[in-house]
Order: sequence, then structure tokens, then C-alpha cells
Amino acid sequence: MKAATGRLLLVPNALDHGAEPLPITELLPHGVLQQAAALAHWVVEDARSARALLKRVQAVVPLALPLQAIDIRELPRPPKGGAAARAPAPDWRGLLAPALAGRDLGLLSEAGLPGVADPGAALVAAAHAAGVPVLPLPGASAIVLALAASGLDGQSFAFVGYLPQEPAARAARIRELQTASRRLGQTQLMIETPYRNAALLRALLDTLDAGTRLSVSCGLTLPAGFTRSATVAAWRVAPQTLPDRLPAVFALLA
Amino acid sequence: MKAATGRLLLVPNALDHGAEPLPITELLPHGVLQQAAALAHWVVEDARSARALLKRVQAVVPLALPLQAIDIRELPRPPKGGAAARAPAPDWRGLLAPALAGRDLGLLSEAGLPGVADPGAALVAAAHAAGVPVLPLPGASAIVLALAASGLDGQSFAFVGYLPQEPAARAARIRELQTASRRLGQTQLMIETPYRNAALLRALLDTLDAGTRLSVSCGLTLPAGFTRSATVAAWRVAPQTLPDRLPAVFALLA
Repeated sequence: MKAATGRLLLVPNALDHGAEPLPITELLPHGVLQQAAALAHWVVEDARSARALLKRVQAVVPLALPLQAIDIRELPRPPKGGAAARAPAPDWRGLLAPALAGRDLGLLSEAGLPGVADPGAALVAAAHAAGVPVLPLPGASAIVLALAASGLDGQSFAFVGYLPQEPAARAARIRELQTASRRLGQTQLMIETPYRNAALLRALLDTLDAGTRLSVSCGLTLPAGFTRSATVAAWRVAPQTLPDRLPAVFALLA
Repeated sequence: MKAATGRLLLVPNALDHGAEPLPITELLPHGVLQQAAALAHWVVEDARSARALLKRVQAVVPLALPLQAIDIRELPRPPKGGAAARAPAPDWRGLLAPALAGRDLGLLSEAGLPGVADPGAALVAAAHAAGVPVLPLPGASAIVLALAASGLDGQSFAFVGYLPQEPAARAARIRELQTASRRLGQTQLMIETPYRNAALLRALLDTLDAGTRLSVSCGLTLPAGFTRSATVAAWRVAPQTLPDRLPAVFALLA
């Protein structure tokens, strides 16, 4: 029974989505490139970026099938707001069909690890429910790289996703995160759409206490990437404009 | 001024600490191996395991210096309990001396990313304070690989480290984490010393609600590695003995 089932391979993507691509050998282990090159079936967050990754893989390891012959299907996009209640449940079992038929299936996100800060987790859950073994291949996540680079507490941390965009709600959420960080001794990590990086930084500097530590990692693994980590007081003395096209991860510890 | 300062490179380690080592090319990007091979100065969690990694690197990329000539210093071990108050503050600036003198310095943990679930974060904080640029190199963290493999919520999660060992305190903490998970919709991740894996799993199955989802990832990236993710009710129907020598990450979502 087990022998007839393919596996769901969680394939890490590079973190340079949207930037000038680096050689893929800088970013992913050779063993991961070999496993990615061997796959004939994929479920991905975005088909175009998946093909772009496979082209970068192909420059190092020949693909088992020509790119056009590889079966690439997209994850259903989560419906927004009120539509969610009316939307039919996605056909996860249908997406798992190659694995149920005995072939390995790759899951790929636009950047980093599938299922972390992206819609892939539901397919992983469906795989467990269907008895398909799940194999995560080693790769980086921007969230944890940013945590390491922050120098903030890495023994206790939380990732909270995006903050509200509306200014009053955003400020209230920032205060809530600062209170939770102080109470639990827990680093709080969040992300933002790149063109709103500067607005989030301003809101954090306007709202947080002077002694709270704030770290921003921008463009991780890119040549232009940097991490700045300092108290809010020090950030206020020397403010900084964040690039509006590089993804950033924000971390605070009160 | 900036040009005279070396960088602190956060070098990811493999996750197979203590197991039969795999080829390092399965686990780390070639670009990371090249950067590790070029370093003459390191601060590490454990000197012996650092030399073991450098030997694995050397099998792929020649080291810039002979292994014996590489300067490897250990992070001070955090003092335990009452000793913490009396211990002198570690000399972080002394450890950063090579970077302050213009040479790149590597930071390495026993497994995964330095500064995440290990004592390296204080050195990273000292680097930021001293104006030493911090560069995290891409690599895997077992915590986030386990999260991806769990199929639990990857948009909101917390890592809480180790639970108390004393049974009543451990059960109280498990209930507290389940309540927090339900209230915040947040996956809660924890780790345990391998020989206590089975005891933690028993405590989780004894304490959590039947509908709570529980995932265990054991020996990630190893040939014997596996992830099992199911409701507590399903775990109870088919319990499982966990290996006592492979590191495991536990995740729950109520």
C-alpha cells in the first residue's frame, strides 16, 4: 500500500523573487536541485515563477522531462472576504492525484518554504489525511533568516503575518504585539508588501516604546540585502528609507 | 570606516547533528560551502562539531587555510540558574575582534541557523551594536521545516522552545499552549531532548483535546526522517514510539 504511494516533496524556492536572479547554486543545495529536476508533477503557488525556477535548475542539473512536458498545476487562490463562505472547497485530492497514483509530487511557493506564510499548508494537510508521505527538503525561509540576523530572542518567537493597513487599527495591533512581546519575552515577526515597507516602518517608529528593539531585514540573500537592528530610540535618531521593491521582514522585542 | 569592518556571516549548519552524516551538498547550497571554506575566523556553539562540518565542506571545496590554522572560538555557555546573576558578562567585543579588524567572521551553531533556538543571538546583537554588518547565509531551520511539513497554519505560528520536565508543570504548559493556539489561531512549535521525545509525546496525547491537531517531525533531512500529522484522537487510536536518538519538533494547532 505504502509502496504504491508517491511522496509530496516540499521544495524550497529561492528568496530573490522579483529581483535580478542569482545563480541558483548560491541559494539551494545541489541535492535539492537534483530532486527538483527529477519531478514530473508539481503543484505551485504561481506557474510562471515555477517555470522560472525550473529554468534556473536546468542550468545546473538536466530536467528529467522537457519543461513543456512537466505537469504544473496552481494552488487554488484563497477567496477573499465574504466570498470565502460561498466558495466550494478546493479539490485537494485531485491535486494529489499523481502522488496517489505512485508518483512524487513537488509543492513550490513563490519564495522560501511552501506552507510557510503562503497557501500551501492545506495541500500538505490533505496529503497527511490521504496517507501521502510528506518530505520537506532543506531550504531557507526569509522569516527565520531575518530572526537569526536580528540578534533578538531566537529561543521564543512568533510570526504574525501582515498587520492591518488602516492606520488606527495598525497602531493598535503594534501596541498589542509589543505588549505580548514584553509579557512572553517573545520576538514578534511580521511582513509587509514591499511598496508599503516605508509606511510600516514609520508606523512602528511612531508607535513602539523607545526601548523596544526593532530589526528590519530587507532583500535577504540579495547583493543589496541588509539587516538593521537597534532600539526604537536609535532608529528615530537616524531614520532610514526602506527600498520599495525588496521584500522585508520586521521583528520587534520589547 | 565601513570598508575597514569585516562582516559577521551567519553560516547554516546541517540538521543531521549526531546522525550518520549525509553528503553536505544535499544540505547546504554550494555558495554557502564556498563562503564557509574562505573563512579564517569562527565563533561556534561547539568546536568539535564545527571542525566536523569544515571537514565535510573540505570534501567539496578546498579550505582557504589548513583546518588546524583556522581560528575557532566557542560561544560562552549560558550560566544556569542562580549562577547567572553572579557570572560576568561575556566578552562579546573580544569575540568580534577579527571582524572589527576587517576580517569576515563566521558564526555557527550545532544544527540549523545560528541564533535560532541556540545561544548565538547575543553575539549577533553585539555585532549590530558594534557596527559589524550581519549577513545571514541561506539554510534550513528544523523548526520551520517541521512547520512546513505539518500542514498546520503557516501564516501564524510561535516557537516556544522546551517545555518543563516536571509532569504537572508540563501538563499545565501544554494546556496553556493549546488555549493560546485556539485564541490566536496560532500553531505552537516546541522541541525536546531526543531521549525525552517519547515522554513529551505521551504528555501531549494525555493532555490535549481530541480535536487538536498534532504534528511530529523526527530526523528531518535524514533517510529515517518522517512527519506524522493528525488529530490527537487519531494519534490515540494508533500511538507510535518515537526514536530516542533523532531530534524531533512538535507542533500543535487547536
